[in-house]
Amino acid sequence: MPQGKPAVVPRDGLTTRQRRNRPLVVVHTGEMKGKSTAAFGLALRGWNQGWSIGVFQFVKSARWKVGEEAAFRALGRWHETTDEGGPVEWHKMGEGWSWSRKKGTEQDHATAALEGWREIARRLAGGRHTLYVLDEFTYPLKWGWIDVDEVVATLRDRPGHQHVVITGRDAPAALIDAADLVVEMTKVKHPMDGGQKGQRGIEW
Amino acid sequence: MPQGKPAVVPRDGLTTRQRRNRPLVVVHTGEMKGKSTAAFGLALRGWNQGWSIGVFQFVKSARWKVGEEAAFRALGRWHETTDEGGPVEWHKMGEGWSWSRKKGTEQDHATAALEGWREIARRLAGGRHTLYVLDEFTYPLKWGWIDVDEVVATLRDRPGHQHVVITGRDAPAALIDAADLVVEMTKVKHPMDGGQKGQRGIEW
Repeated sequence: MPQGKPAVVPRDGLTTRQRRNRPLVVVHTGEMKGKSTAAFGLALRGWNQGWSIGVFQFVKSARWKVGEEAAFRALGRWHETTDEGGPVEWHKMGEGWSWSRKKGTEQDHATAALEGWREIARRLAGGRHTLYVLDEFTYPLKWGWIDVDEVVATLRDRPGHQHVVITGRDAPAALIDAADLVVEMTKVKHPMDGGQKGQRGIEW
Repeated sequence: MPQGKPAVVPRDGLTTRQRRNRPLVVVHTGEMKGKSTAAFGLALRGWNQGWSIGVFQFVKSARWKVGEEAAFRALGRWHETTDEGGPVEWHKMGEGWSWSRKKGTEQDHATAALEGWREIARRLAGGRHTLYVLDEFTYPLKWGWIDVDEVVATLRDRPGHQHVVITGRDAPAALIDAADLVVEMTKVKHPMDGGQKGQRGIEW
C-alpha cells in the first residue's frame, strides 16, 4: 500500500516524469519463500502494460515452478490471440546444470550458466525486453560461475528502458549496491519447522 | 529453493501424505513491496493445478493493481476457453471504503468491509475455492472493522482443503499465531528513499 510519496526530492536535474520512469534493477533475496513468486507477480503488472516479458530460470527441475511457467505461457498465448497484455518468452538457462540432473560435470554446468547469462547480456544490449526476470540468478553468481562485476557493468550500461528483477538467496554485495530496490524475504514462521513437507500448488 | 525436507518429523499420527496436503493459512506482512505480488505469484501455481482461485481485494482504487487483475481475468478466460488451469473469481470488497473515494463515511466503509468478510466466511464454510487471496486484509483488522478473533475461528474451522493467503502490513498477533506460514517483506533498499516515485508496471 505504498503512497507513492518520495521521502526526499533529489537535486539531480531530472523531471518527476523522468525520475518516475527510470528503469529499475530489483533484487528479491533472503531465506524465505516469496522471492520468485513476488518476481512473477511483478511480471503480471508488466504484462498488463503490454511489456515484453523475458523470464530466464537458472534452476531447472522436471516439476519445479511449472505453475508460473504454465500461467505465463498461457498469458503469452492470450496476448497473441487477443492482443491484450504483452508477449512472454520463458527460457530455462543452463538446463544441464541443475542438481536434479545426474549427467554433466560441474564445469559443464558452469559453462552452460555462463552461456545463459551471455544471451541475457546480448538481449539487454539490444533492448529486447522491457522486463527481465532472472530467477535464482544469485546461485551461479555465488558459486563463481558468472562474474558479478561483469553482471553489474552490463546492468549499469544497459540502454533504454529495461527493468531487471533478480531472485535468490545470498545476493552478492556488489549486486545489492548496484540495485535500485532490494527486498529481503524473512521468516516469521514456516510449516516445515513443524515437520510439514512442501506441497503441490504452494511450493511449485 | 526449498529442499522440501522438514526440520523435524512430528509425532502427530498423520501420514506424510496427509501432512503434505494440509491446507495452509499464509500471511505476507512487513513494510516492503512484495506482499501482494508474492500472493499473486502463489496463485499462479494454484491456477496451474486447476484450483478454483478467489481473490478478494480490500483496497480499491481506479488504477491500483489493475495489472494482476487483468492478468488473472485473462487466465480465468483462458481456463474457460481451453480448460487449462483453474477458474478465477476477482472481487473488490467494500468498494465504498477506499481512501480514493470521497463519498461515504468511515462507518459505511467499515460496514462494507465487514460484509465483504462475511461473504468470504460463507464461501469458506461452503468450500467454494481452493485458494483464497485476501489482499490488504490486515488493514480492516487493524482498524477494528472486522474482529480478528472471528476471522481466526473461521479459518480454524474451515472444512476440506482450502488455502488462504492474507496480505498487508501490521498483521495482528492473533492472526500470526493462527497462520502456518508467515513471511515478512523487509526493506534493504527502496528507490523512494532516493526520491524516485512509483511507476506504472512496477507499483501497480
